[in-house]
Formats: sequence, C-alpha cells, structure tokens
Amino acid sequence: MSDFPKFVEIREEGPREGFQIEPKVYPIEERVELINLLSDSGLKRIQVGSFVSPKYVPQMADTGTLFEKIKRVPGVEYTALWLNDKGFRKALTAHKVDIDPRLLFYPSNTFSLKNNNAPSMEMREKQRALVKMYKEEGHVVDSVYVMTAFGCNFEGNIPQSRVLEDFQFVLDLCKDENIPVPILTIADTMGWGNPEAVKRMIGAVRDLAPEARVGMHIHDTRGMGIANMYAALSMGVDMFESSIAGLGGCPFAGHGASRAAGNVCTEDAVFMCHELGIETGIDLNKLIKAAVKAEEIIGEPLMGRVMHSGGLDKYRKAG
Amino acid sequence: MSDFPKFVEIREEGPREGFQIEPKVYPIEERVELINLLSDSGLKRIQVGSFVSPKYVPQMADTGTLFEKIKRVPGVEYTALWLNDKGFRKALTAHKVDIDPRLLFYPSNTFSLKNNNAPSMEMREKQRALVKMYKEEGHVVDSVYVMTAFGCNFEGNIPQSRVLEDFQFVLDLCKDENIPVPILTIADTMGWGNPEAVKRMIGAVRDLAPEARVGMHIHDTRGMGIANMYAALSMGVDMFESSIAGLGGCPFAGHGASRAAGNVCTEDAVFMCHELGIETGIDLNKLIKAAVKAEEIIGEPLMGRVMHSGGLDKYRKAG
Repeated sequence: MSDFPKFVEIREEGPREGFQIEPKVYPIEERVELINLLSDSGLKRIQVGSFVSPKYVPQMADTGTLFEKIKRVPGVEYTALWLNDKGFRKALTAHKVDIDPRLLFYPSNTFSLKNNNAPSMEMREKQRALVKMYKEEGHVVDSVYVMTAFGCNFEGNIPQSRVLEDFQFVLDLCKDENIPVPILTIADTMGWGNPEAVKRMIGAVRDLAPEARVGMHIHDTRGMGIANMYAALSMGVDMFESSIAGLGGCPFAGHGASRAAGNVCTEDAVFMCHELGIETGIDLNKLIKAAVKAEEIIGEPLMGRVMHSGGLDKYRKAG
Repeated sequence: MSDFPKFVEIREEGPREGFQIEPKVYPIEERVELINLLSDSGLKRIQVGSFVSPKYVPQMADTGTLFEKIKRVPGVEYTALWLNDKGFRKALTAHKVDIDPRLLFYPSNTFSLKNNNAPSMEMREKQRALVKMYKEEGHVVDSVYVMTAFGCNFEGNIPQSRVLEDFQFVLDLCKDENIPVPILTIADTMGWGNPEAVKRMIGAVRDLAPEARVGMHIHDTRGMGIANMYAALSMGVDMFESSIAGLGGCPFAGHGASRAAGNVCTEDAVFMCHELGIETGIDLNKLIKAAVKAEEIIGEPLMGRVMHSGGLDKYRKAG
C-alpha cells in the first residue's frame, strides 16, 4: 500500500506565514538573518514575504526591502505570495522576486469573503484571469491550492466533491489555455484534516488527474500535521509546504494566542523524512539553527520539537 | 492493511510524568484539581504520582497525600508508579492506590544504570522477583514495558532483536509462573521512533506473541508522537499512555528546557481517535478543560494543540 517517494521537496513558508500572523512587526534585520540561515540549509524555495494590502497586513509592508537585503544562495528560489493581480504586479517590479505563479481556490465561500472580500465563484473566475496575465508576462502556473480542503471554521466540513470540483476547474482551464497541469496542492488551511481523510483526498485527486503532481500545505492547528504528512508520504506525495519552528497559522483558524500551532514544522518534517529514508537535500542541523533563530526573534518558545531535542545523528555516533 | 481498533484505551500519565520533570514542586491543591478534572473526562486510568526516592524525585514525595485528597469517580482507577519492591510496598500501604503491577525492562544498559542504579540484566532478574511479590500480595502483572525500545540517547539505536529478547523473557516468565501474558508495551522513552519503525516493531512483537495485547508508551520528543500513534492504531494497538497537554518527558532525553516535548498529548490523541472513528469513551471538551488547567498550573504555554484550537464539534454544528 505504501508508496513513499525517494525525494521530497520541502518549501519553506515561515518568513511569510510566520510573521504575518504576529501582532507586531519584527525588525527587518532579524528576518533577513533568518532567511539567510534558511538559505544555507539546503532548502530550494523560500517564501520571503507577501505583496498584499499593507493596510490589512502591515507586517508584510516591507517585503520589497526584504528582497533587497537578503543574501541569495545560487539555486534557491526566493518567492512571495500575492492574492490578486495588483499583488502580482508588485512582485514583478520588486527586486529579484522568483515568480512562482499560483492559483488559489476557496471552496468555503465565507472564508473566501473574509480573505479576499469576494465570493468563491468570483475568485474562481479571477484565477482564469490570472492565468492569462501570467501567460502575458511569460510565466506558467506552478501550483494551485484548494484552501480549507478538509473543513472550515466558518462553514464546517467541506465535502470532498466540492474540492474536486475546483481541481476539475483547473484541469479544464489548463486544457482551454493549453498549459501544463500545475502541482495540485491540497491546503488544510484550518487544520481539519486527519491521516485517513488525507489519504482519501489524495486518492480522489489522483483518480481525477492521474498524471498530476500532488502537493500539500499542512497546518498543525490540531496536532495532526506530522501524521497527515506521513499519510500523504505513504501515498507518494512529494511536495510539502511547511514553516520553520512551526511558525504561523491561519488568522481565521480560531485560535487567538500567537503561540497556537501554525504550519507543520519544517525541521520536524525533515527529521521524519530522513528517518523514513526519504531524501530532502536539507541539512537538519542547519535547519535547527534557523529554528532557534526564529524562536529568538519571536522571544517565546515555539512549537517545533526537534529544535528543542536535537536530531539523532550525534546520539547514533555516540552509541 | 489497516486494522484500526473500534475502541482505544487511553491511560493518563500527566500528573506523574508531567510534574516529576518540573524543577519545582507545584501546590498539591492545584494537582488535586487537575486530577479531579481528568477524572471527570471519561478517562478510566490516571497515574496520580509515584512512590520513588524523595531524595531523587522530591516532586513526588507527597504522592501519598495526593491519594488522600483526590475526589474519586467510580470506575476510574487511580494508579502510581514504582521502580522496585520498596516502592511497591509503599503503594500497598498508601491510601487506596489502585495497584497496576508493572514490569520494566531496559535494553539500554546505560539508561538502566542511570534510572535504577543497576544494570539491565540485574533489572531483568528483579522483575522475576517482582512477579513473585505481586503474586504473594494477590496481584497479577498488568503490563510490561520495554523502555527506549527504538533508541537511547546514551547507547544509540536499540536493535529490534534486543527488544524482542526482553519480551521473550516475559513470555517465558509467564509460563514459568503460570500467569497470563500482560500487555506488552513498547515504550519510546526518548522519542526515537518513527511511524515505519513503530509498525515494524509491532509486527515483530505480534509474531512473537500473536495472542498478546500490545500497548504503546509514546514520547513526542521529536514531534513524531501522533504519527507514531497513528501507525500503531493502523496495526490494531488499542492501549496508549499519554499526558494531558503533552506534559512531561524523560529526564534523560537530552532536552533541558522544561517546555521541550514530553509524552504524546492526551487531548490531541483523543481528538485523532475520534476523527478516525475510534471510540475512547472520553469527552474531548472536558479533557481540554483539564489541559487548560495544567497550563495554568505550569504557568507557561504547553505543547498541546487541540487545547489551543478547540475540537471541531462546535464548527461542524455551525456549518
């Protein structure tokens, strides 16, 4: 039954996911240092910040400057998030942003309204417009996300059929626009998934698009993050998004305290992959250094485990 | 492949595991209140404290008094830990301790020396003596533990064959003494396990003793706790030991800070079981109340996730 991949791509979202949810803006020099440590770990894609409304997300207002200040490691992509055409234009004109064009889908209408001030169906049509815009600028869609794929604190359970509808829309859109099918990413934005639900969803997405690459964006809101990732790995999923030290979280996921769990933790995820014999190209000890830096910046204990216990290499050598 | 049990027994170790590792002794009234909240949740077995050396573990010196002060719920067993015959005698004479006679095995000689001041083989023979003593007092061994079953910070990887040797010793002992085979509990004392290693170990223990009940004592030291439990559930394991809010940890597991991860978190574990359709007989919301109380006592954010996010019932009703 298990079909573990040989190599897994871990995409780091901590610098964006992590600091956008914090009530204060942390010094840019500190965030630059964190990104530089992440760059040094073997991660190949780091989401530096986002080009979104500085009115609503003041923590990300200096994303442009951040891109100017970081030290770039050849072969690492430094990306940014945007939610609409305006954000995309900002990213295009900012200093050396590696463009990873995304499409975002919202099966939960309420979440769509809260996140984008537009209903689900309008957001869907906007994705069509985005594809055309990406094309005009010479970019190909890299990944698509169906958000709150397992459930939403506003609307309850999200039926699997509703998630598949959005992915089917993507497949049709790719055909219409004659572009390759991007990574189909299942996003558990509010931490509703469990390992069996994850397996069922991946199986259903595979039935819909057997040739497509499937990814997961996992939140650890209810402690299922690593177990959900394990379930996805056992189904052959080979792209995951995570946050260093477990930084971040969805601002609407219903937990007010900043220390509530955010994304699945990068170094714990990498530790698991290595223990399962799956390569990541990442140096766990360097990742732990970055996690410790993240904790130093936030100034409170973070949720990551391996950053506090260390990996096993040094004990194995001693044994 | 999956063979999930219909019902899982969760045994609570937080009041003992949780406070023994803390540098200070917390007020007894607070710990009584925590135990009373746990009693109210549907848990059927709560480890209240331990009868060990007050010189080495002063945090547990008032265990006898704790047993006098708690409010007992009929049907709930209130147990204690001991490491030798002296501790067992103390438990027998203390106020209404529910005796759950255990045997402990130490494949890591160094850990055995540090924990018991005696080497592995001597500890093994002591277990034989304990069985006889339990018998004399009219008690039957309830569960046996092979500690650091996946690895040990002192000795590195523990070979599976070494763990099986200890379980084989138990099987032979049961035959010799004509007693039923107790729960064979795999204890990942220092958090070395991963889901695949867990499956392999359970499979091997099942091969050794196909009729025996298998249990797991899981530590979340490196963030694998819930994933390891999921793996064990998928192999039909139906007894787990856990700690409310994720309290506790092994004092030798190599993480000095008190906020480093301890046992797998009870309320997160129960949340997963319920989401997988496995019954526990436990009220998750009541468990969350106990977890919040534990955090209040410790006075710092604890590692549990669901205690900070809430379960899903209220959102499902709203949806």
